[in-house]
Amino acid sequence: MSDVLPGLSADGPTVKALDRAGVFHSWSAQGSLDPLPIASASGAHFTDYDGNRYLDFASQLVNLNIGHQHPKMIAALCEQAAKLCTVAPGFANDARSEAARLISELAPGDLNHVFFTNGGADANEHAMRMARLHTGRFKILSAIRSYHGATAGAIALTGEPRRWDNEPGMPGIVHYFGPYPYRSVFYASTPEEETERALAHLREVITLEGPESFAAVILETVVGTNGILVPPPGYLAGVRAICDEFGVLMIADEVMAGFGRCGEWFAVDHWQVTPDLITFAKGVNSGYVPLGGVLMNEAIYATFDERVYPGGLTYSGHPLGCATAVASINIFKDEHIIENARDLGANVIGLELAKIADQHPSVGEVRGLGVFWAVELVRDRATREPLVPFNAKGADAAPMNELKAACIERGLWPMIAGNRIHVVPPCVTTEPEVREGLAIVDEALGLADSYYTGSAE
Amino acid sequence: MSDVLPGLSADGPTVKALDRAGVFHSWSAQGSLDPLPIASASGAHFTDYDGNRYLDFASQLVNLNIGHQHPKMIAALCEQAAKLCTVAPGFANDARSEAARLISELAPGDLNHVFFTNGGADANEHAMRMARLHTGRFKILSAIRSYHGATAGAIALTGEPRRWDNEPGMPGIVHYFGPYPYRSVFYASTPEEETERALAHLREVITLEGPESFAAVILETVVGTNGILVPPPGYLAGVRAICDEFGVLMIADEVMAGFGRCGEWFAVDHWQVTPDLITFAKGVNSGYVPLGGVLMNEAIYATFDERVYPGGLTYSGHPLGCATAVASINIFKDEHIIENARDLGANVIGLELAKIADQHPSVGEVRGLGVFWAVELVRDRATREPLVPFNAKGADAAPMNELKAACIERGLWPMIAGNRIHVVPPCVTTEPEVREGLAIVDEALGLADSYYTGSAE
Ligand SMILES: Cc1ncc(COP(=O)(O)O)c(C=O)c1O
Ligand SMILES: Cc1ncc(COP(=O)(O)O)c(C=O)c1O
Repeated sequence: MSDVLPGLSADGPTVKALDRAGVFHSWSAQGSLDPLPIASASGAHFTDYDGNRYLDFASQLVNLNIGHQHPKMIAALCEQAAKLCTVAPGFANDARSEAARLISELAPGDLNHVFFTNGGADANEHAMRMARLHTGRFKILSAIRSYHGATAGAIALTGEPRRWDNEPGMPGIVHYFGPYPYRSVFYASTPEEETERALAHLREVITLEGPESFAAVILETVVGTNGILVPPPGYLAGVRAICDEFGVLMIADEVMAGFGRCGEWFAVDHWQVTPDLITFAKGVNSGYVPLGGVLMNEAIYATFDERVYPGGLTYSGHPLGCATAVASINIFKDEHIIENARDLGANVIGLELAKIADQHPSVGEVRGLGVFWAVELVRDRATREPLVPFNAKGADAAPMNELKAACIERGLWPMIAGNRIHVVPPCVTTEPEVREGLAIVDEALGLADSYYTGSAE
Repeated sequence: MSDVLPGLSADGPTVKALDRAGVFHSWSAQGSLDPLPIASASGAHFTDYDGNRYLDFASQLVNLNIGHQHPKMIAALCEQAAKLCTVAPGFANDARSEAARLISELAPGDLNHVFFTNGGADANEHAMRMARLHTGRFKILSAIRSYHGATAGAIALTGEPRRWDNEPGMPGIVHYFGPYPYRSVFYASTPEEETERALAHLREVITLEGPESFAAVILETVVGTNGILVPPPGYLAGVRAICDEFGVLMIADEVMAGFGRCGEWFAVDHWQVTPDLITFAKGVNSGYVPLGGVLMNEAIYATFDERVYPGGLTYSGHPLGCATAVASINIFKDEHIIENARDLGANVIGLELAKIADQHPSVGEVRGLGVFWAVELVRDRATREPLVPFNAKGADAAPMNELKAACIERGLWPMIAGNRIHVVPPCVTTEPEVREGLAIVDEALGLADSYYTGSAE
């Protein structure tokens, strides 16, 4: 037993029992929980107290871009801890200064200033506040099929069922439909048509809801939890143009899509579009210490040159969060991790998933880039009826739960969302590891096929 | 230059220049900032790059209860980091389990379950959500003169000017007046009368605004930033009784007041009152890693036994946050830090501030407990006109800025709020250090006296 951490149990059942006695879990009914206690982890794997090792195809909550327990991350953390663990936001701090410098340098356009937060939700809260104060306008457009966090402002932005139980919420959010070629609400038959019609829809909503009342459009550059929806060609540039036309700011939520997940530093780099504000968290330091932030351009920064910015938090720019961000960015450069994620997407995951789709009738579509992929499952390829209904609960969700269990049994920890398996391993995963994981997905999908009711193609 | 943190400048002017180029600061106009770069820290002191050492009478943002760079905190952090830096909230984790066990054990009544967050604002967001869902009611009562955080829900709760630029906000918050004997809005002439009238006021607001529409009353057990307002005798018990009468939950925000600040584990312990929910952050691990949380009782927990709790965050129950909480609680016990804070308040700070009040006509009132004290400054003891007006800006705030500069010049880093100096050193501060700091406050107060316009008493 450790001198400095006395009482930490080294016994899995005790860790679990104490968890069930004292820890309240997010997004859950507490009575039915059976959390797996994790004993250790390394790279793309973690291990439970019975010695079972799992390949982490979820990157925890799609935050672990650099993988588990990178030795240089731990060294950087302890080096900064020995120097200075915490300091109020009002002081200047070497780790924070350097993190801001590195992040601004990577950011597109003149997004040169960083407001640091603790995570993704508060990053979106502050981006929204900045947009409102900069424009003097109140309303914000946010996409249906989106997740932006769970504080009152971020959950109001959110365009999915997790918002429903939190209403009525903060006013002023107008939801619109983004593109989703596989399930087009615009009756489009090609990605190009989807782009054109999704942009016409956004313009129509703005026009009919009052162009001068909108402060910003917020969108996930690539929609994450709600489907890994990669924007079709021209969509992001089209949103940028509409924003410019109406004097509305463009906020890219890159909490999940940024820092390597899409095989780029920022996902917008893939389309060479420059938003006015970018929010980030997760991959910036892989959650080794809670950290998020808002990147803003010079015009927005200038608004707060003489005017007081009315927002803050005790741990803004936390030295350990910032030191691990600095370390992570440097490690990404040294070890070519962005390139690895990009190559895995282009040369391994995309090709392998296409083969899997060929072999499993239940696979309706595969889509993604970098280490950010979805396998969307259906009961019928012709009707595209999802394998489980939207927002399925209890028995309705059984097929996806079985699929999850089948993966876990085989040593793969998957990310299941709705009727999809998201293939979101750490950016550092090796090609053999990715192939091993995809082989397990392939096997497990037999189960999904057993629910298939359509005709074979 | 470090291998793992290359590029971190060891030069004060560079650290500051990079800060001003890239870091956006909270609650500030960016153009006029001149942040002091901090090079190192230990116990109750920190040091800048020119070797100037400051006694930290602000505990950074009143979060550093255990003091700077406690060696056992750093050891615990690195021990946990070597084992497991991050894990998703859905798993079980030894540090998180033990933190929940320790915190629940310390908590009053049957507050046995902990939902972990990243800080204070999100703790209040989740407490509010739990209260709404548990009661099925929507409206929340929150005090004028309060601060609860800066996300959309927390800032709507907030009862001070930092809310104003963030309106309209989340609906459903009703603000009421709490007790403040020195500036009674109830025309009370004794603390007992203040209690009686403040409770009558709360009851009147509830009655006239719809008793069955209220989910909760939230209050800071001891109001922090807005004045260190210690509740007069019987007030908290009276609020508890009113809550019980109307089926309204009582939420104690102990983000600032908890974990030793008031010379108790929880500030409510001082009055033996048991709220339904307690929110905490800051002192739980002194911000060595961002951490906050909500403690809830069995009845609220039971609401989410079968019902899904619609809230969460990626870093809920972060292993490093939890490990430092475990270490901090154990260190507090081993080193009798609660007792130190209590003794400093009862035997040193209270007595010394009383003497200071005797010698400086500008001191209108001193109040507090533990290491949580305010010196309220006035221009006239008879009219109680504050030394600077409410929400003073620019030239109006000059006297307090001068006072701050006078303290800093003398090696004391003070906490200035409105027309007050808050005396809020770390709980580990030694008696000689506290006396040294108070001697500097005493000296600097000559400056406040020079603005005094009332007659000497
Ligand atoms: C796109 C996106 N935005 C915001 C968030 C919220 O981040 P956090 O959980 O750190 O508050 C998430 C979390 O999954 C996310 O995926
Ligand atoms: C009483 C109280 N509640 C909540 C908060 C917000 O905490 P945080 O800054 O960690 O969001 C604070 C911060 O000062 C506080 O003093």
